[in-house]
Amino acid sequence: MIPKELSFTGLAAVREQVPMVHHITNSVVTNFTANVTLCLGAAPVMAPCIDESAEMVRYAGALLLNIGTLDPRQVKSMLAAGKAAEELGIPIILDPVGAGATTLRTETAAELFRELVITTVRANAGEILALAGSSGKVRGVDSMDTVEGREEALASFAARTNTVIAVTGETDVVTDGERTVAIDNGHPLMGRVTGTGCAATTAVACLTACSKDPFAAAAEALAVMGCAGETAAERAKGPGTFVPEFLDSLAGMNENVLNEMARVRSIG
Amino acid sequence: MIPKELSFTGLAAVREQVPMVHHITNSVVTNFTANVTLCLGAAPVMAPCIDESAEMVRYAGALLLNIGTLDPRQVKSMLAAGKAAEELGIPIILDPVGAGATTLRTETAAELFRELVITTVRANAGEILALAGSSGKVRGVDSMDTVEGREEALASFAARTNTVIAVTGETDVVTDGERTVAIDNGHPLMGRVTGTGCAATTAVACLTACSKDPFAAAAEALAVMGCAGETAAERAKGPGTFVPEFLDSLAGMNENVLNEMARVRSIG
Amino acid sequence: MIPKELSFTGLAAVREQVPMVHHITNSVVTNFTANVTLCLGAAPVMAPCIDESAEMVRYAGALLLNIGTLDPRQVKSMLAAGKAAEELGIPIILDPVGAGATTLRTETAAELFRELVITTVRANAGEILALAGSSGKVRGVDSMDTVEGREEALASFAARTNTVIAVTGETDVVTDGERTVAIDNGHPLMGRVTGTGCAATTAVACLTACSKDPFAAAAEALAVMGCAGETAAERAKGPGTFVPEFLDSLAGMNENVLNEMARVRSIG
Repeated sequence: MIPKELSFTGLAAVREQVPMVHHITNSVVTNFTANVTLCLGAAPVMAPCIDESAEMVRYAGALLLNIGTLDPRQVKSMLAAGKAAEELGIPIILDPVGAGATTLRTETAAELFRELVITTVRANAGEILALAGSSGKVRGVDSMDTVEGREEALASFAARTNTVIAVTGETDVVTDGERTVAIDNGHPLMGRVTGTGCAATTAVACLTACSKDPFAAAAEALAVMGCAGETAAERAKGPGTFVPEFLDSLAGMNENVLNEMARVRSIG
Repeated sequence: MIPKELSFTGLAAVREQVPMVHHITNSVVTNFTANVTLCLGAAPVMAPCIDESAEMVRYAGALLLNIGTLDPRQVKSMLAAGKAAEELGIPIILDPVGAGATTLRTETAAELFRELVITTVRANAGEILALAGSSGKVRGVDSMDTVEGREEALASFAARTNTVIAVTGETDVVTDGERTVAIDNGHPLMGRVTGTGCAATTAVACLTACSKDPFAAAAEALAVMGCAGETAAERAKGPGTFVPEFLDSLAGMNENVLNEMARVRSIG
Repeated sequence: MIPKELSFTGLAAVREQVPMVHHITNSVVTNFTANVTLCLGAAPVMAPCIDESAEMVRYAGALLLNIGTLDPRQVKSMLAAGKAAEELGIPIILDPVGAGATTLRTETAAELFRELVITTVRANAGEILALAGSSGKVRGVDSMDTVEGREEALASFAARTNTVIAVTGETDVVTDGERTVAIDNGHPLMGRVTGTGCAATTAVACLTACSKDPFAAAAEALAVMGCAGETAAERAKGPGTFVPEFLDSLAGMNENVLNEMARVRSIG
């Protein structure tokens, strides 16, 4: 079932290399995503201030930019850190939280996407739609709103922007324009806990830091998230106990479990 | 035991309508209160920056303003979001955390209460005392400091300011000036976890978003909190395991459990 | 095994006196360290804004300054709160998170250490090395990088700066220049959860607030942390379930358990 090009060796690489993943992220998920980073085997650092955000990048294996609780100073800091990451060849992972909901978010997502070399965008379908629309870089955006046209439009957007697009939802879709996979793992409890989307972006950043193939890294990261969610849901009694169980499941996830549990399909 | 006007149908309405509850809140409880919102069946959003706080209000069923980690920019953003909420007829719930402790908090609480049409204030007794005193809108404030005069002074303050006042403590009191109830639910472990007061304000906001009677909404919200606290305390081994159990209990709370467990008394 | 000067009576004093511990800290650990404070029996307050940070100090038994997510406004607020604490004779506990990693952190740590009367620094070895080096107040700093010379260099730094130095790692070391102890408690899971270092600083602040001997307070605090970590690790299934178990263990810790579990050795 798993496409041949996906071997699920990325998580082991994270645990061996222990990359530092620099987060400039929203105030709701700082603690949770730092713990997600640690459970995956990487080292979190959060240095949001422009006075040090770019300097901190030199230690990082990946830079994660999440616009969930934006302010103008943070945008400047994200741009500065992003430019430093570009110069050092460090992948940048963008989470355009709430793009489409307010002008500030839509424009900031578009600005970061335009001004920086983004390796991967992790978002939900609505946010990708807003990003694609505002960036003016894709035709057929409207078709993204329908199930039929979505994969094609996502692949077209990925190809035209040379970016990996990782869309999470009931079924996750990852595409680099040439390859597209759907991932059917996950559990409804993940939608009843704040920050699981942001945590998916963290997982993408951790695996991308240790991979030469950001498409494979993103696909494996979302499979890791979904499988850990399923395992945790079996053990949890509700959304509250789900959180510690989910972190334990992430920490216990490995290649063997992924090979057994992951439901990844090539769809393009 | 439960006053006839309280039917505990509010929680089901939240789960059916899934209102967005916009929080501008303190940095200690962002994650916890977002999860409380989700467990109650509503959708949390936190957009603290003035560049988008008012714009985000148009999606919201309620606006929650919590001054727990104030700064001047946040006050401006709260006022802007509050004005937008007023224009749209969206209820505003105020949590004057620490009013009375510092000049900034006391004055900010008074400013928000004076400048905005606040539907409900959720606070502890000391904070209400500080708010009532500084707002200059109530006589007999000092009597609020004694058990005997408290309910009367609270009702008088509520009537004069046309606000629902929800005071949490060992016994919670909710009044709109005409009706006053006491709620005897809760557990001491709730005082040993940070943010349970802020979470009570979140519960009030979630239920007020789906109700035409903010008094009934606040009373039901505090009953929900207290009953969930009792259930969680039975399952928890201490303040640490209490938190996930409390969130699970909130998620599992419903009208039947409330009708069985809630201890709400009309006292005025 | 326990040095005679350490009697482990500090935790009981915290629970009797319930000191307020004012944190100006990083955005990743606000919730966790507030809960740690409550589990230890103290009362957390976080008032980071310069408009009230100094005023809030008058209620505090200790002031904790943690530079984990610095910005220039926060530094000014820390200096103002610190000056107020000095005037009131309130101990200041410094956590120089990431000193050595960026210029901003190294210089801010040095500035706070130079401008304020710091009672105790809690840090890891690298951060202490950066602080000592940048402050120019210690000779033989390089030797701190080797196990052999570390205790001597730490004691020298403590003596010259009249500060208690509490370094956490696989073995913790606490010294005031005259007395030095090593603490062998703890568990590897503590390194797989974000904020356990910051939480150790919180514990040091809570116990220092109720003690006339900041050296004994810091040593007991780190023993409390290490013993609670060991107890929690026995009950946890991974880093996720470790967090609530750790908080429960802190809440259940007492003099008897410490006398049985603590492994504290005089080493100078």
